Amino acid sequence: MEFASKGSWLSEGGPEADVVMSCRVRAARNLVGFPFVARASDAERHELVHIAKQVVLDSELGQEMIWVDLAKATSRDRQLLVERHLISRHLAEADMPRAVAVSEDETLSIMINEEDHLRMQLIAPGFRLAELVEQIEKVDETLEQKTDFAFSSRWGYLTACPTNVGTGIRLSVMMHLPALKLTNEIERVRRAAKDLHLAVRGYYGEGSESAGDFYQISNQVTLGQSESELLEEFVQVVLPRVIDYEHQSRKILVERNTNLLDDRVHRALAVLRSARLLGAEEAMKHLSRVRLGIHLRRLQDVQLDVINRLLLQIQPGHLQLHIGADLSPDRLREARANVVRKALR
Amino acid sequence: MEFASKGSWLSEGGPEADVVMSCRVRAARNLVGFPFVARASDAERHELVHIAKQVVLDSELGQEMIWVDLAKATSRDRQLLVERHLISRHLAEADMPRAVAVSEDETLSIMINEEDHLRMQLIAPGFRLAELVEQIEKVDETLEQKTDFAFSSRWGYLTACPTNVGTGIRLSVMMHLPALKLTNEIERVRRAAKDLHLAVRGYYGEGSESAGDFYQISNQVTLGQSESELLEEFVQVVLPRVIDYEHQSRKILVERNTNLLDDRVHRALAVLRSARLLGAEEAMKHLSRVRLGIHLRRLQDVQLDVINRLLLQIQPGHLQLHIGADLSPDRLREARANVVRKALR
Repeated sequence: MEFASKGSWLSEGGPEADVVMSCRVRAARNLVGFPFVARASDAERHELVHIAKQVVLDSELGQEMIWVDLAKATSRDRQLLVERHLISRHLAEADMPRAVAVSEDETLSIMINEEDHLRMQLIAPGFRLAELVEQIEKVDETLEQKTDFAFSSRWGYLTACPTNVGTGIRLSVMMHLPALKLTNEIERVRRAAKDLHLAVRGYYGEGSESAGDFYQISNQVTLGQSESELLEEFVQVVLPRVIDYEHQSRKILVERNTNLLDDRVHRALAVLRSARLLGAEEAMKHLSRVRLGIHLRRLQDVQLDVINRLLLQIQPGHLQLHIGADLSPDRLREARANVVRKALR
Repeated sequence: MEFASKGSWLSEGGPEADVVMSCRVRAARNLVGFPFVARASDAERHELVHIAKQVVLDSELGQEMIWVDLAKATSRDRQLLVERHLISRHLAEADMPRAVAVSEDETLSIMINEEDHLRMQLIAPGFRLAELVEQIEKVDETLEQKTDFAFSSRWGYLTACPTNVGTGIRLSVMMHLPALKLTNEIERVRRAAKDLHLAVRGYYGEGSESAGDFYQISNQVTLGQSESELLEEFVQVVLPRVIDYEHQSRKILVERNTNLLDDRVHRALAVLRSARLLGAEEAMKHLSRVRLGIHLRRLQDVQLDVINRLLLQIQPGHLQLHIGADLSPDRLREARANVVRKALR
């Protein structure tokens, strides 16, 4: 499998890019006439992959989509797709017929036989959920020209998990909240998010830790809400408040705690430039702080896009692609340190 | 109080200086006709200081000695003397008449009213205990021309603590054992030292931790042993074995664990060069690793004497002398980072 050197959703800035790394919109859809994936037989799952492949490749989107049969892909390739946020870890590790269609620019992916028959996902840098919701509706319409999705006039789109029933749409943003972390305010955000029925997860989604102060925030309940209601609450009220809160914390750091800020930022860059062995989590932590330093203009000679690219390149799958071999944990730490040192030289 | 920029015992190398930072010889002596310090009245302690001052300043050593009345010295000055290893923390903090005579080059100090009436100490860089033992005997003879020390033909010199009775001489070396620490072999050294009745202490003596992989190793029992027996066992057998053990560990690091070594060494220098806030313990740890890196030729652009000087300058008393004011813990960490960054620029 080959990739451009970076996911296009990491390449540009986009609105509020100092806090919002990227945003994603996902629509869950199921084909009429088949049981949900978990209840389907292996033959039915095979058929689902087959039908979905036709639907996607025969649609107007077909030309720009690359089809990956995940049951035949190597585990290293599946790992790469997870690291680029194109498939879920769940889909990568499932033991059944499954696939993903990925657009050439990696902004659109359509997972087959994840929890639902089809999960379409759009990802973009910066804070532009509204745009993405419009786009995912177009993707949805395009595919619906070729097949029928299970829909109830009372409940909306039917999905495997009740929390997705209705629009079937979930919104999520990858936020970079280093100042809230440094000032120990992050727990307040977590509690507030919980009260608002939002899920706060780590860099790799469900169950993962918040490596490097990156937090994935998403809406949890779609039932009974229209796309516009979702947008209104989450996009126009909640997220701007979190962004604002992080901005305020950064301002306080710069104005009242310059030494702490500069200490963390300069140490982070120094360690990244000097380490010969580097764990993934430690690397994320330091990259996060350097990213903060760049946005607050505490560091002059580092480029933001180098840092963004490194956030991908330090992951095990990418390192193994780079070296061209499977690596032991020790060799991974060595390869990671080398890639980082070279990029920041 | 004023000091040269560095203790002369830190300025040169000396034999085995890559492992032995410095060595010290101390002789405990008590004046005839007075109770031991702990049992003396305050009037007697006053008189002891008075007599000792005359003995020292009237002796042949008198001209090169600076007399410091510790009861009148500021706590910052006392702290400085502790950091330069010229007085013990015990003497600095005692609440009684007490003093110290220090030679101009800071190699000789004579503490008055420490545990014993007089404790003479010689300190020198590198591994030259044999020389120092000869020298301390001369100091002892010189002072004995002016007074009588309590001596029993059966037990030898009488001292407040039974472990010092006999020669009254204690030998100690400040060893730098970073490779034994990195390879987790240091505990074996500790156990072996314990079996040999040696005391292993941290950088600041009794009760202190082994900051920065610096270990003070000293003989504990002097009773019934002549100076030559002491020398033979400790200086000619035990210490060379520890030095050799550290050398072997360094060789193994260079040959088989280059990445780990370079990682620790380069990170340490990078942190010292970039931190804006630096704790004493952390600074010691990193200076220790940079010192190792210099000796193993893993670092090109750092001078050993800069590191040795910093080991003194990062201590609170020295930082406060440098700034010219008492500093809060936060300001100390800031001042320490500034001094280190400037020295390593």
